[in-house]
Amino acid sequence: MPPTSALATPAPTVRFERMALIGCGLIGGSVALALKAAGAVGCIHAYSPNSAELQWAVQHGIITQAATSVDAALTDADLIVLATPVGAMPTVLQHIATCATHGSNPPTLITDVGSTKANVLAAAAQYLPPALLARFVGAHPIAGREVSGVQHASAHLLTHARLILTPSAHSSAAALNAAHQLWTAAGCRIHSMSADEHDAIFAALSHLPHLAAFALMHATLDHPAQWLELAGSGFRDTTRIAASSPAMWRDIFRANRTHMLAQSQRLRQVLQDFEAAIAAADDGQALHALITAASQARAQYRSNP
Amino acid sequence: MPPTSALATPAPTVRFERMALIGCGLIGGSVALALKAAGAVGCIHAYSPNSAELQWAVQHGIITQAATSVDAALTDADLIVLATPVGAMPTVLQHIATCATHGSNPPTLITDVGSTKANVLAAAAQYLPPALLARFVGAHPIAGREVSGVQHASAHLLTHARLILTPSAHSSAAALNAAHQLWTAAGCRIHSMSADEHDAIFAALSHLPHLAAFALMHATLDHPAQWLELAGSGFRDTTRIAASSPAMWRDIFRANRTHMLAQSQRLRQVLQDFEAAIAAADDGQALHALITAASQARAQYRSNP
Repeated sequence: MPPTSALATPAPTVRFERMALIGCGLIGGSVALALKAAGAVGCIHAYSPNSAELQWAVQHGIITQAATSVDAALTDADLIVLATPVGAMPTVLQHIATCATHGSNPPTLITDVGSTKANVLAAAAQYLPPALLARFVGAHPIAGREVSGVQHASAHLLTHARLILTPSAHSSAAALNAAHQLWTAAGCRIHSMSADEHDAIFAALSHLPHLAAFALMHATLDHPAQWLELAGSGFRDTTRIAASSPAMWRDIFRANRTHMLAQSQRLRQVLQDFEAAIAAADDGQALHALITAASQARAQYRSNP
Repeated sequence: MPPTSALATPAPTVRFERMALIGCGLIGGSVALALKAAGAVGCIHAYSPNSAELQWAVQHGIITQAATSVDAALTDADLIVLATPVGAMPTVLQHIATCATHGSNPPTLITDVGSTKANVLAAAAQYLPPALLARFVGAHPIAGREVSGVQHASAHLLTHARLILTPSAHSSAAALNAAHQLWTAAGCRIHSMSADEHDAIFAALSHLPHLAAFALMHATLDHPAQWLELAGSGFRDTTRIAASSPAMWRDIFRANRTHMLAQSQRLRQVLQDFEAAIAAADDGQALHALITAASQARAQYRSNP
């Protein structure tokens, strides 16, 4: 192998000629940009029900062509990336199954960017024929912003982002290898775990913080809007992600329903523990201990980013 | 009046020769730096039970002298700034009252930086003789960081920060005017309201987000610590303020107990509303509406910073 300059784009270890991108928002657009920059994909045919967003993506060189339907985007794709809200993925998987049985060349790899994994995996197992199911490897890039839409897409969103692969017993070694190479080419650092483990972890680390941020904004709705002008950086940061896409988060909360309900109940229990310590006619030691445990855990997390 | 260059430090409209700073942490140190930079104070005598912090502040030119007691710091001060956790302020106010009755020259202005105001005002009314109570004007700079300690102090922390003045019926016009000029000199944008209104607003805008951040960190303590390595920017921002000072927040939550309990209960109610919508066997419309209300409110807030 010839030596490569650190400044040159390394030769991709994986290459797809035609990528079907279903869903073309912040993450889908960022994936398209990152894979094109890495030379890992040739042309990108994308479909989104939001045709304005799709046109914008063509005009700004994020995708090659705006497909007029899911099936048109899927035709002859050797790589399929699902980047819709997770609630729409079962329908897309049904399209993929139908296309394959109608003689279109089967894709080499099917992957997704959903924030929940067990439901997507279950839909894949339900709808995909075995030959395609072997080529499906679920993925979740830990990247996002509080703004949505392809207008905010950036290849850098994925650079050094962690990405969780959730292979199933059905995934072939070849597909798993291809998924690993694809997401590495996009700039991600790969972790691998089961879909169930993923969903439990991200209910606590991502979905619950989003729920808390939404709930904090709701708590302000009781008050005059001009109060918010007095808010400081604590409020700003704590609620930043409350501006996230409603459709995306509706689907995530419902897809990860069991874990979410458990996490929300746990959060309410902790709040009740705090309330008891706040109300107590003592010297404040119990409340101090509760805050100290949280403060130390957060300081420890900060020191190990 | 001669024209002044925009680059020159404007002549201060208020000037104190000797400032007593009681409590010398992140905010106290930042106030000292900002007032010195503005030329609004001469020497600063500070007291803190943390003598290491006090020495650090002397060595780094943040304060003029480390006092060995509250009373020593207060002697002959024409300006007193209370920058302790709010739970310690009643004791400091008792010291101020005692000093004044022992022949020390009375201060022109007594102010504080506490995040709660009704309890500080009540303590001032309880302990200060009428002549001193007239010179007390409570203040709350909306500035802070998730780190504590004078080592992190910076004059810029107060630049353009909003500051809430909570004058009482006892405050003299001269003291109120002096407080306005002092905090303006420190770089703050002044708002004025009653202590009760302040405490209601900041329970919602600041104290509840801190409680939520502490509670979110507690919810992660149930899980293996290495999970946190997978957390993304949402978790990071939502929990940033959970690293804040335990003693400071214990005092704030307890000082603002009634509002805090109401806010926490409100937050738990909202979480229950979300849980019902997540659990519902419907098309997700109720959940979508709940998230949309939060998302729109946050986007609206972002657009009017």
